[in-house]
Amino acid sequence: MAKKNNENNNNKKQNAQQPNNRSQSKDKSKSKGFQYNKKGGKQGFRSRNGSAKKYRKSVDETPVKIAFLGGLNEVGKNMTLYEYKDEMFLVDCGLAFPDPEMLGVDLVIPDFSYVEKNADKIKGIIITHGHEDHIGGLAYLLKTVNIPVYGTKLTIGLIQGKLKEHGLLSSAKLNEVAPGDVVEFDEFSVEMIHVNHSIPDAIALAIKCGAGTVIQTGDFKVDSTPIDGGMIDLSRFAQLGNEGVLALLSDSTNAERPGYTESERKVGESFDVLFRKAGKSRIIVATFASNIHRVQQIINVAASLGRKVAIMGRSLENVVDISSRLGYLSIPDNVLINADLINKYPADSLVIITTGSQGEPMSALSRMAFSDHRKVEICPNDYVIISATPIPGNEKTVGKVVNELLKLGAQVIYEKMYDVHVSGHACQEELKLIMGLVKPKYFIPVHGEQKHLRKHAMLAEGMGIPVDNIFIADNGYVAELTNSSLKSGAPVPAGKVFVDGYGVGDVGSVVLRDRKHLGQDGIIVVTASIDYETGQLIAGPEVVSRGFVYVKEAEELIEKARKVAEKSLENSYYSNISDINAIKGKLRDAVSHFVYEQTKRSPMVLPIIMEV
Amino acid sequence: MAKKNNENNNNKKQNAQQPNNRSQSKDKSKSKGFQYNKKGGKQGFRSRNGSAKKYRKSVDETPVKIAFLGGLNEVGKNMTLYEYKDEMFLVDCGLAFPDPEMLGVDLVIPDFSYVEKNADKIKGIIITHGHEDHIGGLAYLLKTVNIPVYGTKLTIGLIQGKLKEHGLLSSAKLNEVAPGDVVEFDEFSVEMIHVNHSIPDAIALAIKCGAGTVIQTGDFKVDSTPIDGGMIDLSRFAQLGNEGVLALLSDSTNAERPGYTESERKVGESFDVLFRKAGKSRIIVATFASNIHRVQQIINVAASLGRKVAIMGRSLENVVDISSRLGYLSIPDNVLINADLINKYPADSLVIITTGSQGEPMSALSRMAFSDHRKVEICPNDYVIISATPIPGNEKTVGKVVNELLKLGAQVIYEKMYDVHVSGHACQEELKLIMGLVKPKYFIPVHGEQKHLRKHAMLAEGMGIPVDNIFIADNGYVAELTNSSLKSGAPVPAGKVFVDGYGVGDVGSVVLRDRKHLGQDGIIVVTASIDYETGQLIAGPEVVSRGFVYVKEAEELIEKARKVAEKSLENSYYSNISDINAIKGKLRDAVSHFVYEQTKRSPMVLPIIMEV
Repeated sequence: MAKKNNENNNNKKQNAQQPNNRSQSKDKSKSKGFQYNKKGGKQGFRSRNGSAKKYRKSVDETPVKIAFLGGLNEVGKNMTLYEYKDEMFLVDCGLAFPDPEMLGVDLVIPDFSYVEKNADKIKGIIITHGHEDHIGGLAYLLKTVNIPVYGTKLTIGLIQGKLKEHGLLSSAKLNEVAPGDVVEFDEFSVEMIHVNHSIPDAIALAIKCGAGTVIQTGDFKVDSTPIDGGMIDLSRFAQLGNEGVLALLSDSTNAERPGYTESERKVGESFDVLFRKAGKSRIIVATFASNIHRVQQIINVAASLGRKVAIMGRSLENVVDISSRLGYLSIPDNVLINADLINKYPADSLVIITTGSQGEPMSALSRMAFSDHRKVEICPNDYVIISATPIPGNEKTVGKVVNELLKLGAQVIYEKMYDVHVSGHACQEELKLIMGLVKPKYFIPVHGEQKHLRKHAMLAEGMGIPVDNIFIADNGYVAELTNSSLKSGAPVPAGKVFVDGYGVGDVGSVVLRDRKHLGQDGIIVVTASIDYETGQLIAGPEVVSRGFVYVKEAEELIEKARKVAEKSLENSYYSNISDINAIKGKLRDAVSHFVYEQTKRSPMVLPIIMEV
Repeated sequence: MAKKNNENNNNKKQNAQQPNNRSQSKDKSKSKGFQYNKKGGKQGFRSRNGSAKKYRKSVDETPVKIAFLGGLNEVGKNMTLYEYKDEMFLVDCGLAFPDPEMLGVDLVIPDFSYVEKNADKIKGIIITHGHEDHIGGLAYLLKTVNIPVYGTKLTIGLIQGKLKEHGLLSSAKLNEVAPGDVVEFDEFSVEMIHVNHSIPDAIALAIKCGAGTVIQTGDFKVDSTPIDGGMIDLSRFAQLGNEGVLALLSDSTNAERPGYTESERKVGESFDVLFRKAGKSRIIVATFASNIHRVQQIINVAASLGRKVAIMGRSLENVVDISSRLGYLSIPDNVLINADLINKYPADSLVIITTGSQGEPMSALSRMAFSDHRKVEICPNDYVIISATPIPGNEKTVGKVVNELLKLGAQVIYEKMYDVHVSGHACQEELKLIMGLVKPKYFIPVHGEQKHLRKHAMLAEGMGIPVDNIFIADNGYVAELTNSSLKSGAPVPAGKVFVDGYGVGDVGSVVLRDRKHLGQDGIIVVTASIDYETGQLIAGPEVVSRGFVYVKEAEELIEKARKVAEKSLENSYYSNISDINAIKGKLRDAVSHFVYEQTKRSPMVLPIIMEV
């Protein structure tokens, strides 16, 4: 595999001095493609306007393959694999939060088996921004294949925090890029394009290879008055559109919402109004930890009104620390105070920024609402602003927190009472704007459930993209694109891998089914000792239940169940049934049947017979 | 206790011929107050404009006590108890659906202990309408105290259906009333007032006693163009307001929503547009079973377009049956077809009305979406209308159903895409209208969570009701009202009673805590047999797990846990620990600790030691 681009000789030399960075392709002595020099700043790769690779006008007929490893028909665990000829790279590696039916599961990550199988082909992973649904699976991925990681400064900063927790910081190959930069692999070049989102430093990707240019938007919105970092680079999307774009993969999260998403700045205006309305009250604002621009605005308004700011909640403290260290958060002197010292300040000179805007049971705001927070006791002089809208599924938990805060006498601003939240995702008009600028031949809606993907596809159809050129994919699907065709390739493994404690993938459908059964109906354990030789009952049976009935009030029922068990064991003995599994089966059936008759409930019945 | 009102002599006579109806107060030989004659039609009680009881203008200072047995700080299980002097009666007896953390609970009903304690004082229960949150607990109540039940025709019809399931139909004392009727007890008279709601035949109550008049709205909205039954009787509210109202208890469900709730008729107009848009497709409409006016409109539009209608889903079939039998649903000839015969009709001449508008997993629409319905296979020629908005907490389940329907190629109209749903509850302007007409001295917001009650209280304050005259109560609170004071009385028992299978109240916090633990982490059962005399290990230990890990892939871990258990038992033996609970405690600790170290999970560890 020859290096296509002579202009990158410098880079190759650079790489030669960085053995560590090359270790991921140890068995391939030929060209390695571009490797970013972590220590040497940006010299290791070109900027967009620098030494541009000359892409062939005449694209070839080898398809670029896009495998969807996550993020379709779901919200979360976004992960996409690009393949051209013998080269692959990944975009994003997120996590998803478990559905309520995934009992006991901490988080859900993509299935990496296809990545593992192709480890030697994969040149790296590019992360579009630092949200959990785009970086949360990365630590687990890097334990499997330690490929180079590319991301913008803040994204890399947040990734470092995560990798540290997993003990991977020293081994990981992290590469900082900036909008305008181009990462060059052998077959692919990937350009970073600045976009607006609810976290700074988010990027879209322009992915070029012999088959053409694919644009993947990442999560984005169009904010003409963002708090920092400038408006989304629409002109670059336009320029690429004019050069010709094979396919657009675009964020479908808000495809159901008409119109435009409001500017983040709108929220700042609301804060200004509400903070003044709060008068002599203590102000508590709950928001997403990663929404640094939101935090910045709260700090700005607080400072302008002479209030001090305290930060509460581990994830928020962490993000504020990283983002202020990296220059994404600018905190005036003497505004931030230690959360332990809030009681030294009068209520009307305080703003507390906290986590828990989704009503998460263990979050700071939840603890405050349920009078379980070490530092903050809610009182009628509190003015609480929940600066977020509930993510679908969280309406009830958020409602509970609001109710409890109100019971304690606090004033609460929540849901759509004021403009205290704007989305980070593009609505229909913005989605159409991007399509109009990019003018893709093929359109693939990504990031979202079926209803989002469909709606986004309908928007594309309305923009004149032929139905046959729109691909609604699913996890595991592979889109094979050439300039003349869009085909669905052979599917690849892509599923949900559950993380529970240290365990990755050891909780599957059997365990979940049992958990559901146990959680709904409880368990009855029937134990007995029988003679090893004769099969005669020696001790027991004993009947112990958990999660079935309150035993103290159901002694009679349990005793009757014991008698049923005893009778079953005696029957087996007198019927000369000696197979232990047969005896157990009869025991289970007898007890289950009896219990259902009596209670109309079906607890799990677990017979344990010891042969003595 | 003397009968206050001579005009009711007729009624007394009537009652004397109805010993069955009087059995609830068997030990009280004096006046029984009014009892409705079930067989004799309405002659047993007066109409509002008939022989009106002369209420004293000069009210006395004995307070009327209102005890809230359910429906406050929650949505569901509405139940209110009125007490004046030595007389009590109840309003509504609803159920609530379990929160997700109430694992395995089928439904939640009010705590009846205060009712049981005062059984001999309670003259009856008046039901405002036939929704589950107002009638769903009634069967359980009547098993406790078999008091007379009063309700309008449809309400009684629906109650009969429920009581039949519980085998209570023959023993129950059901009394049909109509708007304008007055039920007379000894101390109380209760007048029924027609209101609009999402089920026909809903009533508000004007409750009169020596302390004054209390108006309880029940669930209501103001619909000037309802499908049937006429507009809410605003003039009666006005008249009562002019006569002087002590207190208003009003429905807070939509207190957060500004403006007016649209008329039910609006939905019919949408159906007309959408059914035409559906063209050649089969139409499937999901709605609440009890929304008979919605069903009527679907049938009307279907008939006008020459489509046949099939009903699917048990609760819907049931409600359609009852309401058409009682004349609340008017179905043209040859429109309704048997659900088994749908395949005999072309798609474009069919409308299927189905349950499942909340995405309930076992409902007809869910089964269709997940290709698990016996009669309906969803295909791209289906046009599905979900004629409901998700109740908070159901957003995700509804979304799932929508996604699955879309995957099967159906067109789906959901959420706020068209006006295919209107609420059955009054919004802010309607709530203020009722307050303005009723002009109550005291205001008590009911039916809702804290956020709804607060918002409703704020509306009342805005209407000029002094803050001290507004009472935000909670379940178990008692409001004591006289013309000169509003006091909070001694609280009464009021809580959640869980129904699980046949069990009522036998699942409590301990069982739920165990179920949660089992559901999250599973269980490890460690069994061993020890010598009864020496304490020496004879057999085992055996380690069996459920819902913890997939055992086939974790044999090593389980074997290690077994060794840990063995060691613990040996240690106990060699340390001469003979107390079986102490041995179990050490065993549990040892295994729990080991498992957490290895997996960072905390399954329930259940040690069972048999002494042989």
